[in-house]
Amino acid sequence: MLKHIITFSVFLFSIFTVQSQDKDSLVIQQIFEEALTKGKSFDYLNYMCTKIGGRLSGSVEAEKAVEYTYNELDKFCDQVKLQPVKVPHWERGIKEVGYFTSNGERKNVAICALGGSIATPENGIEGNVVEVQNFKQLRDLGNKGVKGKIVFFNRPMNPVHMNTFTAYSGGVDQRWAGAMEAAKQGAIAIVVRSLSVGINDFPHTGSMGYDEKITKIPASSISTKAAFELSKAIKKNPETRFYFKQSCKTFPDAPSNNVIGELKGTEFPQEYIVVGGHLDSWDLGQGAHDDGAGCAQSIEALRILKAIGYTPKRTLRAVMFMNEENGMRGAKEYGKIVSKRNEKHIAAIESDRGGFIPKGFSLQGSPEQVKKAKSWAKYFEKYGMYHFKEGGSGADIAQIKTKNVFLMGLVPDSQRYFDYHHATSDNIDAVNQRELELGAAAMAAMIYLLDQYGN
Amino acid sequence: MLKHIITFSVFLFSIFTVQSQDKDSLVIQQIFEEALTKGKSFDYLNYMCTKIGGRLSGSVEAEKAVEYTYNELDKFCDQVKLQPVKVPHWERGIKEVGYFTSNGERKNVAICALGGSIATPENGIEGNVVEVQNFKQLRDLGNKGVKGKIVFFNRPMNPVHMNTFTAYSGGVDQRWAGAMEAAKQGAIAIVVRSLSVGINDFPHTGSMGYDEKITKIPASSISTKAAFELSKAIKKNPETRFYFKQSCKTFPDAPSNNVIGELKGTEFPQEYIVVGGHLDSWDLGQGAHDDGAGCAQSIEALRILKAIGYTPKRTLRAVMFMNEENGMRGAKEYGKIVSKRNEKHIAAIESDRGGFIPKGFSLQGSPEQVKKAKSWAKYFEKYGMYHFKEGGSGADIAQIKTKNVFLMGLVPDSQRYFDYHHATSDNIDAVNQRELELGAAAMAAMIYLLDQYGN
Repeated sequence: MLKHIITFSVFLFSIFTVQSQDKDSLVIQQIFEEALTKGKSFDYLNYMCTKIGGRLSGSVEAEKAVEYTYNELDKFCDQVKLQPVKVPHWERGIKEVGYFTSNGERKNVAICALGGSIATPENGIEGNVVEVQNFKQLRDLGNKGVKGKIVFFNRPMNPVHMNTFTAYSGGVDQRWAGAMEAAKQGAIAIVVRSLSVGINDFPHTGSMGYDEKITKIPASSISTKAAFELSKAIKKNPETRFYFKQSCKTFPDAPSNNVIGELKGTEFPQEYIVVGGHLDSWDLGQGAHDDGAGCAQSIEALRILKAIGYTPKRTLRAVMFMNEENGMRGAKEYGKIVSKRNEKHIAAIESDRGGFIPKGFSLQGSPEQVKKAKSWAKYFEKYGMYHFKEGGSGADIAQIKTKNVFLMGLVPDSQRYFDYHHATSDNIDAVNQRELELGAAAMAAMIYLLDQYGN
Repeated sequence: MLKHIITFSVFLFSIFTVQSQDKDSLVIQQIFEEALTKGKSFDYLNYMCTKIGGRLSGSVEAEKAVEYTYNELDKFCDQVKLQPVKVPHWERGIKEVGYFTSNGERKNVAICALGGSIATPENGIEGNVVEVQNFKQLRDLGNKGVKGKIVFFNRPMNPVHMNTFTAYSGGVDQRWAGAMEAAKQGAIAIVVRSLSVGINDFPHTGSMGYDEKITKIPASSISTKAAFELSKAIKKNPETRFYFKQSCKTFPDAPSNNVIGELKGTEFPQEYIVVGGHLDSWDLGQGAHDDGAGCAQSIEALRILKAIGYTPKRTLRAVMFMNEENGMRGAKEYGKIVSKRNEKHIAAIESDRGGFIPKGFSLQGSPEQVKKAKSWAKYFEKYGMYHFKEGGSGADIAQIKTKNVFLMGLVPDSQRYFDYHHATSDNIDAVNQRELELGAAAMAAMIYLLDQYGN
């Protein structure tokens, strides 16, 4: 008899499992169909790129983006909130100029100030230029080899890595800490090879740091193409001189906001699932892939669930984090308030790796959570997604990391990302509508599964 | 004792398997590193796009591409051959003009002649325009509804399909057979909605057919954006008129060539493995993705194997097929000669789906062959490739299909392909270097495995 009961239970269990799987597959299919046939993510992004433009923290454009996304979320959310936050305010000023001179010949190069840098003197700064690949070489040259000179950091991103973010991580110390390390050895300024994989003529900006205890020196970025030429000139003539002029300036912190749209949960309204991107961008391009795409996809993920008539169990939040690029103030503020109000976040998904073809999700959670998400991978296979692996999620949602919250990052293919990252080329015409839509659908599908089955 | 022997054998087998797997992984790693650090595929493609341009069969550009690829292959191959073939020769003539008129207002639209179409009369052709979605609607309208009119085929590619080639297959009958079907009902010309997934303002050309028994009428393609506008105008005013002018012409067949580069096999030189793409393209853009990419990758696949010092067992051939777009003459000729000479082809790989991020291979072979290729999927996972499924290979290599030959198609992601396909936008700036390189590496890796372990 016991045997029969077991058999029967297994049978029942199988039926329910199969039915529930079918139901989930169907809902996920509806999600993808909505995204691909009536999707709005591209419209959202197109507006942010072409009607607003680059949205650096503290800028008028950033505030326009707050207003725009607030209004779009307000069209379908149960509630939309602004969460005030003070952000750094740095401005580039007039377009930078740079050139190098060797044997009397002058060659103009494409440069830009690194974000947060001080300006050069009004007439620019000039000096002999010394090339290094890393901080060890810099320290080996020492004060004797560096003093009074401009240091040129020229270590390329390693093209061998399949994941270009790995190559980026391997090069970003030059940009972040280059000015501090060079100043320690008496340098008067730095110029850093742009963090881009290929050879192109766009300078790529990005945040850099100073230490109050070390002399602040101007820091600029040079295009990979110009870096190649500068390096060649230095090899031919070690007396090559470099000149650049930038008028960037840091202003007092400015008021801004995170934008939070909610679909209220019907069973567990006090449990939150967050999907988000960052609303600020650098100022050179339109901030299309970084991270207009993530914001557009986050709004769209909630819109899709609403559009297909889904009733969420938990409260779903789309969060536009302000100031990821140069301060993380928005994400920190969000994290602080979550903690103060003791809001129970069960999961959060961030999209901040560009609006390219989605490959899956990077999973940051307990072994059980990771296992659970991997068991859902089957729902994504037919949409070409196979990447369900442990890894970092996103800088913004990392601010709400606790023992129980399950964090995920949308993982799109990374091959093209650093062609555009922080450069004038990060524009809407670098975004494919279907790729963007598929990413939004993937996020909506993952929210659905997390909402149904918990973290 | 027997037990010990078995254990020992299993042990030995395991060691050899593991060692051989490690060796294969290492060779494949070398292949990818060569492609990503010293790759030439982008240079090859850049030359074909910017120094030569669109390479329609019978054109001067197609002949320049024959010469260029011959010379590049000749730099490292053991032997390079030209295989003469007569190809169709159709020319577009002067740029087409089109507009529609409704209630006295004229609206210019982006159109182009379909490949192989006849010209309009010298001053163009004009008539009332009738919109249909498919041939059934056309036949339902019949002679009464169509006679003397211009038929507008406006069925969009279905955006729901993840594989955009499936959506393309679902729409291409309008382009290929539209003129014949419309002429049967007495139409004077046709205009076909471009086969592109999104809304853009490029007309996309492509081959169309006539039947010697049916009146030949001029056939044009209209951009998806203009198709949307035309359809709106017709809905408002069924008396909307359409006008277009094209001066295209078919000339006598022209001499051309397939280009074949070989690395001679050292163990089984009489067994061939082919890797190929088609050298001709349409004339509107540079033929970057279709199929300059496939040619560049095929040359590069062989160059990589040579560069890493690999000694092939079988004879490896890179074949640039001529005239895939409007006649398949090159592939047919290649197939004929293979058959005549009884050349034993064990496998062939075609790249003709664009130079986008590779997802894997489509497998066209016996169940055993398919199983074998699937067992190799593990080598490609770390390079982001998971697609190893039965399916069509490529139009060119399909001409050498026999019972024993194993055919494969490189499968890149398809989301962006129909933004560029057969349009003025199919240019080098639509190609990402790393994506192209990864496809070439994948092909080289697959050739290596086929060469090592047979089909």
